[in-house]
Amino acid sequence: MKRFAVLALLAASVAAGNAWAQDAADSKGPKAERHEFVISNFKTESGVVLPQAKVVYGTYGTLNAAKDNAILLPSHYMANFHGYEWLMGPDKALDPSKLFLVATELFGNGNSSSPSNTPEPYHGPRFPVTTIRDNVEAVHRLLTEELKITHLQAVVGFSMGAQQAFQWAVSYPTYADRFVATSGTAKTYGHGIVRLESEIGAIATDPVFAGGDYQEEPKKGIEEFALVWEGWLFSQEWWRQELWKEGAKPGTTFESFVENLKTNFIPGADANNLILQMRTWEKHDVGSTPGFNGDLANRSVFSGHRCEV
Amino acid sequence: MKRFAVLALLAASVAAGNAWAQDAADSKGPKAERHEFVISNFKTESGVVLPQAKVVYGTYGTLNAAKDNAILLPSHYMANFHGYEWLMGPDKALDPSKLFLVATELFGNGNSSSPSNTPEPYHGPRFPVTTIRDNVEAVHRLLTEELKITHLQAVVGFSMGAQQAFQWAVSYPTYADRFVATSGTAKTYGHGIVRLESEIGAIATDPVFAGGDYQEEPKKGIEEFALVWEGWLFSQEWWRQELWKEGAKPGTTFESFVENLKTNFIPGADANNLILQMRTWEKHDVGSTPGFNGDLANRSVFSGHRCEV
Repeated sequence: MKRFAVLALLAASVAAGNAWAQDAADSKGPKAERHEFVISNFKTESGVVLPQAKVVYGTYGTLNAAKDNAILLPSHYMANFHGYEWLMGPDKALDPSKLFLVATELFGNGNSSSPSNTPEPYHGPRFPVTTIRDNVEAVHRLLTEELKITHLQAVVGFSMGAQQAFQWAVSYPTYADRFVATSGTAKTYGHGIVRLESEIGAIATDPVFAGGDYQEEPKKGIEEFALVWEGWLFSQEWWRQELWKEGAKPGTTFESFVENLKTNFIPGADANNLILQMRTWEKHDVGSTPGFNGDLANRSVFSGHRCEV
Repeated sequence: MKRFAVLALLAASVAAGNAWAQDAADSKGPKAERHEFVISNFKTESGVVLPQAKVVYGTYGTLNAAKDNAILLPSHYMANFHGYEWLMGPDKALDPSKLFLVATELFGNGNSSSPSNTPEPYHGPRFPVTTIRDNVEAVHRLLTEELKITHLQAVVGFSMGAQQAFQWAVSYPTYADRFVATSGTAKTYGHGIVRLESEIGAIATDPVFAGGDYQEEPKKGIEEFALVWEGWLFSQEWWRQELWKEGAKPGTTFESFVENLKTNFIPGADANNLILQMRTWEKHDVGSTPGFNGDLANRSVFSGHRCEV
């Protein structure tokens, strides 16, 4: 239920628009600086070497002289770095006047290296399936090589951001004081894979998709993808109590709410990008970290560290 | 959880084949007689009058002279009348040597009147959306006019069969001593509609479907429909514990299990039939019974009757 509660909270916060809307950093939001970090010849777990791997990120606040006030906020599915701004402010959990917040964007979101923005030979469906560990490795290099940060106060992540927080706790257990993972898991189990495959299949069923080599976006397939996802986004009780009415525009009906979410789920998203990040999600398993031999329960992983789940 | 437990039980019972397999009434099964009941000029709630509405049903055992040993078993989604045989036997809940069991098939299953077997002008996608109440009315006429049964020991239904049991309790509250509804509801709420629409949309996204006027079955769309449904069929914990391994053929893998269910979900099912019964499911609401004014909680409905849910 916690997953749905947080998702509902997230969705409610953007009820006027769409579930994943966070582009519009309005004038009342915290002030961000946008950056890009490029790694040459980045070797992914798949074996593919990306000539240029780009990580887009935003920063809030100022890194202090001791460099000990940094917190990492890795993005969730198809999010950009603005996705955590609802947690930021002088009276909120993350205060940029005291902290240096680094919000990174996952490969495949359309800004960081993605199927949609990578040149041949790794364009479109040829882009390698980057793993959560690939993302953690790239961000680790960004933090240590570019920002010269040797320690974090915390890694805070929601959903696929939580997947990254768990992987950070395994790959770099002493690098942060805290790992805060909400609505995410250390491994994607069978159900998650079946659900995600059904969402990938929705896009692929549209012949316009053409195996990823489409000439135009497969609009019908993406709408069906959104409709399948809509069934998983909120709890059965949430629908039963008609909580979509909270914060809805006047005149909103059940039908118009469902239709709006179906047609405006992740506006402008590229089909190959949507699929790439679902594959990243599916493959996640901290137990497959080299040296762990699939032992998800290896207690040494988290011993001595504070994980807030 | 009860829903998933029963579904898992059902699926486990047919693990060697497919989730809805019940055609093969093997030699060890109870002996059934197949019948058809045809109603002329059957007026559906939609307003459409079907010139010939056919209800296929099976009977087990013998109606005694007093006609007081009958139990009704209305079918679940896309089932035929064999769907309750796992409950029948001398040492099981329903003993045909003592009881007269009447197992009816819902409109739209391909045997009873359906999009696939109805002549013009109500063929294919032109077949009216029959409601659960339409089905109850047709079966009430079958029982009273054809079989001359004035009272039932029970109405026992699973899933869409439970929807029918609830509707029987509202439409004919004194007609049976007991209404036994498992894994079904008295009304389809928002979540059920969104889930079913995502499954309908999966079929409709396949251009072969052609709005229901297809020249061949939309195979890709039906497979995607099955994959979406697969995510809803078993619980997250069921997948996590890999309970698909129970009773699986040697060599079965997660991938082959998922693929087999996707490609053999409801073998031979017609796309318009699949959709028709989902629309029947969506529209179900005992509160919309004429005279109830949407009052699902009308306590008088169930007062004095034993409902086992």
